[in-house]
Amino acid sequence: MPFELTVLGSSSATPTADRHPSAQILNIKDNLLLIDCGEATQNQLLHYRIRHTRIKAIFITHLHADHFVGIFGLLATINFHGREDNLKLYAPSDLKTIIDTYFKISGIQLKFQLDFISTDDSMVHLIADEPDYQVHTVPLKHRLPTTGFIFTEKRPLKRLKPELCEAFHIPFSSYQSLKEGKDYVNTDGNIIQNYLLTEDNPKPRSYAYMSDTLYLPQLAEVLHGVNLLYHESTFMHELLDRANETLHTTAKQAGMLAKAAGIKRLLLGHYSARYRDLTPLLFEAQKEFENTLLAIEGEKYIVD
Amino acid sequence: MPFELTVLGSSSATPTADRHPSAQILNIKDNLLLIDCGEATQNQLLHYRIRHTRIKAIFITHLHADHFVGIFGLLATINFHGREDNLKLYAPSDLKTIIDTYFKISGIQLKFQLDFISTDDSMVHLIADEPDYQVHTVPLKHRLPTTGFIFTEKRPLKRLKPELCEAFHIPFSSYQSLKEGKDYVNTDGNIIQNYLLTEDNPKPRSYAYMSDTLYLPQLAEVLHGVNLLYHESTFMHELLDRANETLHTTAKQAGMLAKAAGIKRLLLGHYSARYRDLTPLLFEAQKEFENTLLAIEGEKYIVD
Repeated sequence: MPFELTVLGSSSATPTADRHPSAQILNIKDNLLLIDCGEATQNQLLHYRIRHTRIKAIFITHLHADHFVGIFGLLATINFHGREDNLKLYAPSDLKTIIDTYFKISGIQLKFQLDFISTDDSMVHLIADEPDYQVHTVPLKHRLPTTGFIFTEKRPLKRLKPELCEAFHIPFSSYQSLKEGKDYVNTDGNIIQNYLLTEDNPKPRSYAYMSDTLYLPQLAEVLHGVNLLYHESTFMHELLDRANETLHTTAKQAGMLAKAAGIKRLLLGHYSARYRDLTPLLFEAQKEFENTLLAIEGEKYIVD
Repeated sequence: MPFELTVLGSSSATPTADRHPSAQILNIKDNLLLIDCGEATQNQLLHYRIRHTRIKAIFITHLHADHFVGIFGLLATINFHGREDNLKLYAPSDLKTIIDTYFKISGIQLKFQLDFISTDDSMVHLIADEPDYQVHTVPLKHRLPTTGFIFTEKRPLKRLKPELCEAFHIPFSSYQSLKEGKDYVNTDGNIIQNYLLTEDNPKPRSYAYMSDTLYLPQLAEVLHGVNLLYHESTFMHELLDRANETLHTTAKQAGMLAKAAGIKRLLLGHYSARYRDLTPLLFEAQKEFENTLLAIEGEKYIVD
């Protein structure tokens, strides 16, 4: 059961020749969720061969152009291809206003049900509670109402009991199905029940997406123990004044937050167009928190 | 003084892995005009190294997603980069409604003046009369109010008098400046006045952009003698019923119109995503009108 992220866009504000505005696909147990939807998201989906028909829900953090204007073309394309499944759209309530205006002037009559769920940036909220996952919003501080999102799996994978797996000669190829709760059947057809070989995992995996925001040290608490944290790092710390003025975060600050929150892995992104080479951003964050990676378009990041 | 077209998008309705929705840059005597603005137009400008700062005006035919939703990101980027020059936007009046809603919810405060000029699809209108060019709207027939555009140069290039150029031993390298109305100065510093070597050209060059529309044979009159005609050819003629139903044109019909209008060159475009190979569309149109080309993204087409 996959839990992995594909980055579709990594730029801030404006695209560059190589980078697109914010958009990511999170595959959480085969539920495909689109997080932010900057311009050309549908082109990026085509480019990386991810079918829009598989998207179950869209999550928009805030209504700056580089985080949402791809929704116009994407919804038109989804409708053009005759989708019938419901689609959930979690976003600030003003998005409904502009989408309704758009549908009206473009003569778009939806063939599928678009469920609009307004986000609220006043406090942490559970906004989605699905069979396979939960999503919480996290208030961020930016120039418009903005929320981050934390995606948490339900029914986490079980933990193997290594000694017993060894004692029963369980082959490595069966570890994954054991973690998923299935019994083991050996070559003679004998069944070894799952509970003998595994134990419950008290800690479900989670992915947090925090963009765009002023550096908020108090997020350490709500992000505590997250497996993978994507945090915007628009600027190098030498541009701290610019970051404060525009309500963005520096790479150093993203690293500081990751460390304070005790997360597993940090993923940087939302890079200012001024940086052609991104390694200085990476090195700056790694000085604070070693297990840091750069979000690169087209790359996949496992949440584990 | 250039008069040339760069195609940025050639797909209809939805993008494909290789093609983008409608957008073109027309350079008419160093005035850069953007015609239609499908999603990812700003990415295509970056890709083909055309600076958005040079765009003087934007012309939108109608408000289907594949012809205008790139305007959101493009205007945000133009504003982000601190443009000060006025920008003219010619489009159906509803575009102003949605843009104003967008500016409000995204907190965009324009730093430059955006002059909105509403198009009218009831009859042929002169909507732009600039020092270097004129633009007329042409009513088209589609599912929403739609206009095509005809761009005509002012002060057309003069015609050389070949016998006199020869008699005065004018070198080939000076022909262009003579056409532009400049006098000839020979190596001894003697001036030969322009009027001796050239005559006025009664026929200014023009470019017509017709998308999207049902086949309208009556356009032959208004398009008569156009140098370059871009006409949508969404389908092959075997899908005529589909073309009629969706108010689009077939490649054969585009060729028939070009022939009836007595134009110089026909450029096909707005291809349905079903056609990976476009040559059948080309061959179909060429049977009706030989001087036909395919609009290919990134290619330049001289208007002469």
